[in-house]
Amino acid sequence: MPIPTTASKVRVSADDLRALVSGIFSARGASAADAGVVADALVWANLRGIDSHGVSRVPRYLELFDQGESAPDAVPTVERPRAAIAIVDAHTAPGPVAMNRAVAEAMAGARACGVGWATVRGTVHTGAIGYYTSQAAAAGMAAVGVVAGVPTMAYAGTRGAAVATSPLSVAVPAGRHPAVLLDMATAVMALGRIAQLKAAGSELPAGVAVTSDGEPTTDPARAAVPLPVGGAKGAGMSLVFELLASGLAASPIVPAYHAGDKRHRQNAFILAVDVSAFCDPAAFAAAVDDTVDAIKARPPADGVAEVLVPGERGHRSELERGTSGIPLGPRVWRELTGAAAALGVAVPTPIPG
Amino acid sequence: MPIPTTASKVRVSADDLRALVSGIFSARGASAADAGVVADALVWANLRGIDSHGVSRVPRYLELFDQGESAPDAVPTVERPRAAIAIVDAHTAPGPVAMNRAVAEAMAGARACGVGWATVRGTVHTGAIGYYTSQAAAAGMAAVGVVAGVPTMAYAGTRGAAVATSPLSVAVPAGRHPAVLLDMATAVMALGRIAQLKAAGSELPAGVAVTSDGEPTTDPARAAVPLPVGGAKGAGMSLVFELLASGLAASPIVPAYHAGDKRHRQNAFILAVDVSAFCDPAAFAAAVDDTVDAIKARPPADGVAEVLVPGERGHRSELERGTSGIPLGPRVWRELTGAAAALGVAVPTPIPG
Repeated sequence: MPIPTTASKVRVSADDLRALVSGIFSARGASAADAGVVADALVWANLRGIDSHGVSRVPRYLELFDQGESAPDAVPTVERPRAAIAIVDAHTAPGPVAMNRAVAEAMAGARACGVGWATVRGTVHTGAIGYYTSQAAAAGMAAVGVVAGVPTMAYAGTRGAAVATSPLSVAVPAGRHPAVLLDMATAVMALGRIAQLKAAGSELPAGVAVTSDGEPTTDPARAAVPLPVGGAKGAGMSLVFELLASGLAASPIVPAYHAGDKRHRQNAFILAVDVSAFCDPAAFAAAVDDTVDAIKARPPADGVAEVLVPGERGHRSELERGTSGIPLGPRVWRELTGAAAALGVAVPTPIPG
Repeated sequence: MPIPTTASKVRVSADDLRALVSGIFSARGASAADAGVVADALVWANLRGIDSHGVSRVPRYLELFDQGESAPDAVPTVERPRAAIAIVDAHTAPGPVAMNRAVAEAMAGARACGVGWATVRGTVHTGAIGYYTSQAAAAGMAAVGVVAGVPTMAYAGTRGAAVATSPLSVAVPAGRHPAVLLDMATAVMALGRIAQLKAAGSELPAGVAVTSDGEPTTDPARAAVPLPVGGAKGAGMSLVFELLASGLAASPIVPAYHAGDKRHRQNAFILAVDVSAFCDPAAFAAAVDDTVDAIKARPPADGVAEVLVPGERGHRSELERGTSGIPLGPRVWRELTGAAAALGVAVPTPIPG
């Protein structure tokens, strides 16, 4: 399947795209508020240039609704067993609904106690987790987010998928600069990017994936299992993220998966840190700005035009796409407008040109 | 300088080595309790097989005392601005003294609030941070530890050292199995290991280090700057660890270093999570055991004898060295016994054979 060319893409404004996605989720039974949350999370990923985690995922949510693996109108419940911690049971609500609640709960814990932790049990597709940590940063807090899911990645020394590509996000508020926003999979290369290269028949870089027999390969047709970043390091991070996210949620995924339960589901946690409880927030913001400036002023290696800090590229994309609209490939646009038409949801007009 | 051969090593029991190191620190003015803490932290690293972070570091502490960059009798002070957080000001106390206090404070916060965070400001040489997180695991808590220090590692796209090799440790208590204990630098290869290869004149693996001009090299004579694991991922982790550890301590290291202040110092944080506040600790331990079993039962890739989980190798080393003693190279033994003699500290007899 060829990758769509830029020429065949349509551009849709972020507002129009949010209305379209929100309309689809509302029509499938989500509350207006929840539909808005899902739309905002997905469109944010597109704005940031993370198209693999954006509105292209809408059909997968609809499929999970059809299969009964996710409920569009599920209402997460929250326990707060101690002052700084909350357990959000998603009851199979879409990831953004459960994760948004978790961010709010983690921040409430942090306001009260200095740090707050929210565990999320039993959600589906959380999308780009930088969306959640960046909300805390926008409110002046630092945040750490981790998601655990079903195994898709090799563990160091194993043949075949053993652990998930469990991502880590860390957001730190700055002053003059945009928030520093790390959002990384524990795999060398994200699954979505590998899928793109495979679809295009392009050779993979070395060290990215192995065959189903565990042999290293750069052949897109034979690449089956992505490798963890740094071997034992990425594998170890993925494993401890599963233990912290799923273990504390009393819902371990990895052992159940290897025992035969292949259902899609995710657990997660968000940690919020109230900077103002530690120090003067203005001094903290200045320290972050100074640190970013010091890194960006380091002499670049040969062939490097500019030293970038985490989140900088995404911030530029957000500014650009916020103005000129979000480019969508023909397949994504066809699927979205098809779903909208079937549900009686109005389809926006793409930006001309 | 040739690497000492195994034949020329001495073996010393862990108890004797602790007494020796503790005696040296006491003689330099540390309280008996603090000297014991430092000795236990360093000997633990040797027991676990992390010799680069063990008693070989004693001369460096003595040098920092001589230079006035660390005070053996400094008494850390603690503020607790909110119920779940503490700020431990080390006042240049040796790392183990400040970090041990931080673990206790983080665990106190976790017992009260579910999670607890302790920031450490202005310490030196923290050693192997798995020592601190594993103490929390021994008490049934999960823990995350991060240390920030002076730049020694390239940042993705820079020439020369830009950030520290800031390590991450995560400890998770188990049941039948030893605690899962991740303890990793954000560099591809730890500085100590690179130094060993350089000292031996051995070629480095590709992708581990660059020259002072930022060129990739495997030549031990030209390798100057270690590379971050996973490029932008390891670099990004190191940067956000500095922002969280040093930023919240109101003591940023990276911008000060690049502005000319090259003093050795470290900041850190420890996060403790009280498992029993989330769920039944026995069920949690069983979930960790099941997850470890599931990973270890995955089919190994070609040439892999056994799939290991984080901390497993170190646990085996601890059992073996706890029984048969800790092997020390002739230089390390000479430096330790020399320091002991100069300070009037009794030198133990190595294990015969």
